[in-house]
Amino acid sequence: MKNVKIGIMGMGTVGSGVYRVVEQEGNYIAHKEGMRLEVKKVLALQYSIDIPEEKKAASVDELANDPEISIVVEVMGGIEPAKSFITKMLEAGKTVVTANKELIAKHWPELEKVAKEHNVGLYFEASVGGGIPILRAVSDSLQANTITSVLGIINGTTNYILTKMCDEGGDFEEVLREAQRLGYAEANPTNDVDGFDAMYKLSILASMAFHVRLPIDHIYREGIRGISKTDIACAKELGYEVKLLAIAKREGELVQMRVHPTMVKTSHPLANIKDSFNAILLHGSAVDDVMFYGRGAGDFPTASAILSDVICAAKTAEHKYMTFMNDEVRISPTLCFENNWTTRFFIRMNVEDKPGMLSKITKVLGDSDVSLHSVMQKGQVGSVATIIFVTHEAKELYVKKALEEIQEKNLAEVCSLIRVED
Amino acid sequence: MKNVKIGIMGMGTVGSGVYRVVEQEGNYIAHKEGMRLEVKKVLALQYSIDIPEEKKAASVDELANDPEISIVVEVMGGIEPAKSFITKMLEAGKTVVTANKELIAKHWPELEKVAKEHNVGLYFEASVGGGIPILRAVSDSLQANTITSVLGIINGTTNYILTKMCDEGGDFEEVLREAQRLGYAEANPTNDVDGFDAMYKLSILASMAFHVRLPIDHIYREGIRGISKTDIACAKELGYEVKLLAIAKREGELVQMRVHPTMVKTSHPLANIKDSFNAILLHGSAVDDVMFYGRGAGDFPTASAILSDVICAAKTAEHKYMTFMNDEVRISPTLCFENNWTTRFFIRMNVEDKPGMLSKITKVLGDSDVSLHSVMQKGQVGSVATIIFVTHEAKELYVKKALEEIQEKNLAEVCSLIRVED
Repeated sequence: MKNVKIGIMGMGTVGSGVYRVVEQEGNYIAHKEGMRLEVKKVLALQYSIDIPEEKKAASVDELANDPEISIVVEVMGGIEPAKSFITKMLEAGKTVVTANKELIAKHWPELEKVAKEHNVGLYFEASVGGGIPILRAVSDSLQANTITSVLGIINGTTNYILTKMCDEGGDFEEVLREAQRLGYAEANPTNDVDGFDAMYKLSILASMAFHVRLPIDHIYREGIRGISKTDIACAKELGYEVKLLAIAKREGELVQMRVHPTMVKTSHPLANIKDSFNAILLHGSAVDDVMFYGRGAGDFPTASAILSDVICAAKTAEHKYMTFMNDEVRISPTLCFENNWTTRFFIRMNVEDKPGMLSKITKVLGDSDVSLHSVMQKGQVGSVATIIFVTHEAKELYVKKALEEIQEKNLAEVCSLIRVED
Repeated sequence: MKNVKIGIMGMGTVGSGVYRVVEQEGNYIAHKEGMRLEVKKVLALQYSIDIPEEKKAASVDELANDPEISIVVEVMGGIEPAKSFITKMLEAGKTVVTANKELIAKHWPELEKVAKEHNVGLYFEASVGGGIPILRAVSDSLQANTITSVLGIINGTTNYILTKMCDEGGDFEEVLREAQRLGYAEANPTNDVDGFDAMYKLSILASMAFHVRLPIDHIYREGIRGISKTDIACAKELGYEVKLLAIAKREGELVQMRVHPTMVKTSHPLANIKDSFNAILLHGSAVDDVMFYGRGAGDFPTASAILSDVICAAKTAEHKYMTFMNDEVRISPTLCFENNWTTRFFIRMNVEDKPGMLSKITKVLGDSDVSLHSVMQKGQVGSVATIIFVTHEAKELYVKKALEEIQEKNLAEVCSLIRVED
């Protein structure tokens, strides 16, 4: 039987998970796949599980110089030293499997070039959607499709927070603190709650789905800090859930990419994705809608994706490299990024209860080509009323311009602007 | 660029879909995958779309003898002549891609043996879940998992009927007729509504998930004809949806497989799968819960799965054959099929309104080790009351025995027995 010797760089939650799943499932994998996986060396500054002393590498060079190790798993996270270490491994002729979304989002072509030069593979299924096999589905199962849209709940922390806010009615800060206490959110939560993590993942996933390199600086990003208890309550009343969606759509040569809180109808497949679960809904020209759901993080689920890459890599004679159509093949030299996308909007504002105000506000909206689907006046505090508009499809920039004008003219205080996806 | 020439046997809905997707997506596939797909010959008795005369094969031998054709797609359905034709193609050294669930469920090992002998591939992603890439996910993405349960809505027709019954309150016969009128159900609906189609698919899917050959004669099968408007209304009231689930569970050497109407809580991921959509929920030792959702039938979605197989097959140097552990490798010579599984039950019965009846009924249940989660007495017609029991986890055979005894003793008329999945 083939023996596949692995190195692991990083021994936090995910690294330990990989180590333990190899131990637990090794025999079964051997029977099914005809290969014996063995973690030969581990490189870390500290170890959260018991690792035999002889497996602990003293330096990154010890891993790189071990001729028996053919595949190295990187689960350190962050840009450096992960990037240098990965480069070293690729240059040493080792295939790298990584879960590092930030690194791949920022340095994919560069790292892939090194991999290609040394005829080794670079795999990163675990970088998007944790245990959900989404990247392999896109590359190996949906090949006959032109994928036109990607909608994902790809950050578990924010989905956990929004689910709690929705089910238990808490305020953002309160629920965040609880999530931090339970270990669902980091002490410094910005990577999750401000949408950076989802942005990295969207860049990778959409690039793969559209076969076009889509860097993070073309992604509009807005986190969930601005979502209030009131917004969630209003959404519920209107039959919506609020989710942090990562959205990428392609129409011909126009691509739009955005990460922001979004209202989705309760009947929408993504509305029922609760707690820290992730889900990705794709639309393909042949397959129509297809959705993938599972655990977006965690030791064992992420290890499942990493080891799937390891096993695929070990079986592959020729590693596959991504052909970006706006790079080498250039069928899309005219590709443009769309900022003025069209969608529906939920707008909540506080208005002084004086005659003619609603008329003035709706005139500004109308003049900006924003037509209204519904208007609702909510409870009044003193002389201030809350008004909620839900628009028909309208241009993002026109809506923003109209809201600026409304504020400038002191017609209302705009409290929330949340996009709506049907 | 590599040229891949394909033959298609069968030109109904799916065959036409494959032909059209190759036409529509051919250029894009060529750019992405570096291969040009071409349908060289088509074999059918009649053609629902325009096919150039020179592509119409006059006989199955014309396909088999064409040395340029390397892959043949079979979408005729049924056992014969599909089986003979596929065998002929495999013997002629051609890889076969089929959507034929009945054939694969019944003759998989036999056909795979022929494929292996001739060093060609046998692919059937489209046989389960239509466009959903479920088989490839199991084999190429979840390798590091011991899969312990498979729960699927894998028949679109019955899901459509149950959704309509639930949303619009119709009776089974009425909704079936409407589904037939709209083309969602066949004139002879038995393959769908009596659970045969789901049984074939479950045999394939569970065999692959558990790496054990699980023939259809070990699958308990019950269709949806017995589900009444009243059951659906009661389910709703209790917070459940009724779905035709295909269930396979493995606990050590014990496997249970069953297709039957099932009540699932409205918060269950499968509860929100509406209309003709399919979804499969798997539980793996590393990945935890993972679900795949999409169109389980239709020309283009099925073509998406078929062409994914075609492209994978064309890229593969060594075709993968299934290693059944109860066949060649024999790590499970002690495998048993469990008929007396444990689950929860919804029981609806009509009881004559006489003193002491409920006490007698619950005594029979209690004596059979069936403990009750809830009891509800519903509206009364004349002297007959409807009583609904929801049990705790109980053994299937004990519940059935108890209900027989209740009927024999004339304590009640048992109207429905529906299993409940949490």
